[in-house]
Amino acid sequence: MSEAKEERLVTQITPKSEDFSRWYIDLIRRAELADYAPMKGMMVIRPYGYAIWENIQKLLDRRIKATGHVNAYFPVFIPESFLRKEMEHLKGFAPEVAWVTHGGDDELEERLAVRPTSEAIIGFMYAKWIKSWRDLPVLINQWANVVRWEKVTRPFLRTTEFLWQEGHTAHETYEQAQEETLLILNMYKEFVENELAIPVIHGRKTEREKFAGALATYAIEGLMSDGKALQMGTSHNLGQHFAQVFNIRFEDRNQNLQYVWQTSWGVSTRLIGALVMAHGDDSGLVFPPQVAPIQVIIVPISIGNWKDTVLPVALKIKESLDKAGLRVFLDDRTEYTPGWKFAEWELRGVPLRLEIGPRDVKNNQVVAVRRETREKLIINQDNLEEKIKELLALVQKTMFEKALAFQQANTREAENYEEFKSIIEEKRGFIRAFWCGAEECEARIKEETMATIRVIPMDEEGGVNGRCVYCQKEAHTRAIFARSY
Amino acid sequence: MSEAKEERLVTQITPKSEDFSRWYIDLIRRAELADYAPMKGMMVIRPYGYAIWENIQKLLDRRIKATGHVNAYFPVFIPESFLRKEMEHLKGFAPEVAWVTHGGDDELEERLAVRPTSEAIIGFMYAKWIKSWRDLPVLINQWANVVRWEKVTRPFLRTTEFLWQEGHTAHETYEQAQEETLLILNMYKEFVENELAIPVIHGRKTEREKFAGALATYAIEGLMSDGKALQMGTSHNLGQHFAQVFNIRFEDRNQNLQYVWQTSWGVSTRLIGALVMAHGDDSGLVFPPQVAPIQVIIVPISIGNWKDTVLPVALKIKESLDKAGLRVFLDDRTEYTPGWKFAEWELRGVPLRLEIGPRDVKNNQVVAVRRETREKLIINQDNLEEKIKELLALVQKTMFEKALAFQQANTREAENYEEFKSIIEEKRGFIRAFWCGAEECEARIKEETMATIRVIPMDEEGGVNGRCVYCQKEAHTRAIFARSY
Repeated sequence: MSEAKEERLVTQITPKSEDFSRWYIDLIRRAELADYAPMKGMMVIRPYGYAIWENIQKLLDRRIKATGHVNAYFPVFIPESFLRKEMEHLKGFAPEVAWVTHGGDDELEERLAVRPTSEAIIGFMYAKWIKSWRDLPVLINQWANVVRWEKVTRPFLRTTEFLWQEGHTAHETYEQAQEETLLILNMYKEFVENELAIPVIHGRKTEREKFAGALATYAIEGLMSDGKALQMGTSHNLGQHFAQVFNIRFEDRNQNLQYVWQTSWGVSTRLIGALVMAHGDDSGLVFPPQVAPIQVIIVPISIGNWKDTVLPVALKIKESLDKAGLRVFLDDRTEYTPGWKFAEWELRGVPLRLEIGPRDVKNNQVVAVRRETREKLIINQDNLEEKIKELLALVQKTMFEKALAFQQANTREAENYEEFKSIIEEKRGFIRAFWCGAEECEARIKEETMATIRVIPMDEEGGVNGRCVYCQKEAHTRAIFARSY
Repeated sequence: MSEAKEERLVTQITPKSEDFSRWYIDLIRRAELADYAPMKGMMVIRPYGYAIWENIQKLLDRRIKATGHVNAYFPVFIPESFLRKEMEHLKGFAPEVAWVTHGGDDELEERLAVRPTSEAIIGFMYAKWIKSWRDLPVLINQWANVVRWEKVTRPFLRTTEFLWQEGHTAHETYEQAQEETLLILNMYKEFVENELAIPVIHGRKTEREKFAGALATYAIEGLMSDGKALQMGTSHNLGQHFAQVFNIRFEDRNQNLQYVWQTSWGVSTRLIGALVMAHGDDSGLVFPPQVAPIQVIIVPISIGNWKDTVLPVALKIKESLDKAGLRVFLDDRTEYTPGWKFAEWELRGVPLRLEIGPRDVKNNQVVAVRRETREKLIINQDNLEEKIKELLALVQKTMFEKALAFQQANTREAENYEEFKSIIEEKRGFIRAFWCGAEECEARIKEETMATIRVIPMDEEGGVNGRCVYCQKEAHTRAIFARSY
């Protein structure tokens, strides 16, 4: 692309304050995170976006394995009859299933679902593999693509196909399954907060919002910068529902035949959308260093004989940062000006920019610019790797603190329904409010305000007392409400 | 499973010499590399098998990135009309396509293919992204699942769904595309030889055997221990075929509009089947240390008060090997005897076993047993990590040399068709023979002997002179023939 054309494209991004949805889409396409595919609701994850997914995979897979889980791979197709075995599950997923009906020229005897989730096929296999309590627990995860035929789609947030990990475990007792469910929920929270720098509220979903076929669903919910909530990960205690329909039984320690207790849990490429919406600004993306595809961009100031003076120093710095294990890129293209590069890499969300000009070379220094605060620092080149590592850690911390302050400032208590409605209309954000537990109140609130119960936080069930924000009846549960993606 | 049942299963593996095919399947299922799924031709890759794929991914991905490629992700579905654009491509793949016809309850306007390979969808996207010579080369790879509706299937070797990486690149000139094609071919050869310890012959496929839609296909071919060849990776120079049908054009350095030159290349989970067939023996799997899920198995000899004397030392050794970055597992299960464990981990192909008994603890030593030679070594515990690393490197080297010696001993020259037929009937292996280049000779040989031209080795084209092994006419090409999977 010619420079002029590129520059026009940069300025084409709709300001965030003007139209958040448009800003989101513009940014994703302009920064080359993803592009629309020619099929309804499908996207291509471009290299710059996929690099984030690779970082997420690496950092999360490490945690999954450290807690004793192993990876495997189950088929992408699930026979229709398998989905039909668990009726709740079927009702939840059938409307979203892509059906394979032909193999080559032949019509299949039974339709195959392209997996919308894998409980059914994994349940079938577990019934073959699990015989005794000695085989338990089974702690398996898979990284895979799934397909859900969604009516309304948006890149990363809701697409016909997406990438995810899905854990599927089997245990001897309810208590062990529940422990696993919460272990993973806490792992997701720690992962998202420490690596993606997004604070989340974790808690239980209501009956209405839980996973089709689960006993209980737990989730982590983040607050995006437009004040809407995003479900960022779920962990389900499946009870014995799937064990009963797929006949997954084991001989227990007393030689009795028992159904196993199961869990399942997942996060997806939706997390990339969360990064865009939680941290981005009018200048573009802002990535936390831990998952940024490029952590440090080096821009040589191309004046005079810079190729002889500046470039060799820039190269030396790039190599030393490379060697220190940082993800660094030297933008030495001659067809673009330094100013254009500054804007371009800001748009792409690189957390730290190093500028090096003739004067910096003379003074043995670099100019560092933080993306998230735009703070400018002059740094001596000696022992630069350590300083940059510290600076990136500081950026990561600052980004989390900023997001946390935003979340706290946008979490409000509502004593009554009038307050509730005015917060939703005027401010959005999370609303903490008492709820009597009636599905009717929950449904009415949704109908009237488009807000749903995101979660019942871990410590807000049972021990609290108040009056339902909708019906004013006695309530022992305080829930987090929000409009959501 | 009870011990008695497990033991019976071990002995149930058909000896390799008796029935190679049966041995292969028995071994894969008994060692828990994979299991049959309930859908025709599909398999589940179990954790022990998937760990090999993860090691392959890590080691190959590093090489793919070191040569300037980046990863991305393209949709699993391809509209039928896209596949129809390149007729050769369509003819090659249409009989093997799984077709999605419904999304939820609605019939689709156009059928979607579950990707059998991604040239068509990637071609469409490249046409959107590539405008100028400045955008070239595009060097993208993806790790993905693909589906081919195969009639005859075998775990890992040919399954309805498999996992692979597929690289798709675009270049300014034919020469650059050809250079890329061979760069990858050589990378595959180096990777398979150094990491999988399987020697391969690399060369060009004939017109008859090339990829549907390619200008030229190159491949690496390994020789399995039953004397049959296995295609282990392919690299295609696609020419401008896809560029023309998808209109992938760029403004060249002289401002003329040109079609790009493309390549594509891939290896798949078939490589796991190759590891089984190239290295396995009657006692089970033999994995090269570089990709073995477990590199070192520690078996404490459970005599007397071993839990107080032997186990703490075994644990200490496990931890020190862990810390040294080795994949090590301590089998301290009490329900199995040491002898049972020896057989079990031999069957699972762990390259090195460390036995530790009371006497070894007293003498500050361990007994090491190499899986591939069964050689027994007494090793002092001091500085054990370094010694184990050296030993594993030696095992890796020995395995490659053994496989190379086998390949060399089983590569034979055939001067005439009688010789050719008797080698194929009595010995199998690779046959090096002159070929006139006529498709008819190639087809007749296949029909009459079931042997095909695997490749024309890199240095056997043009400069050589002889007479065609089939028709005895003048020949300037020497090819490698074999029966194959």
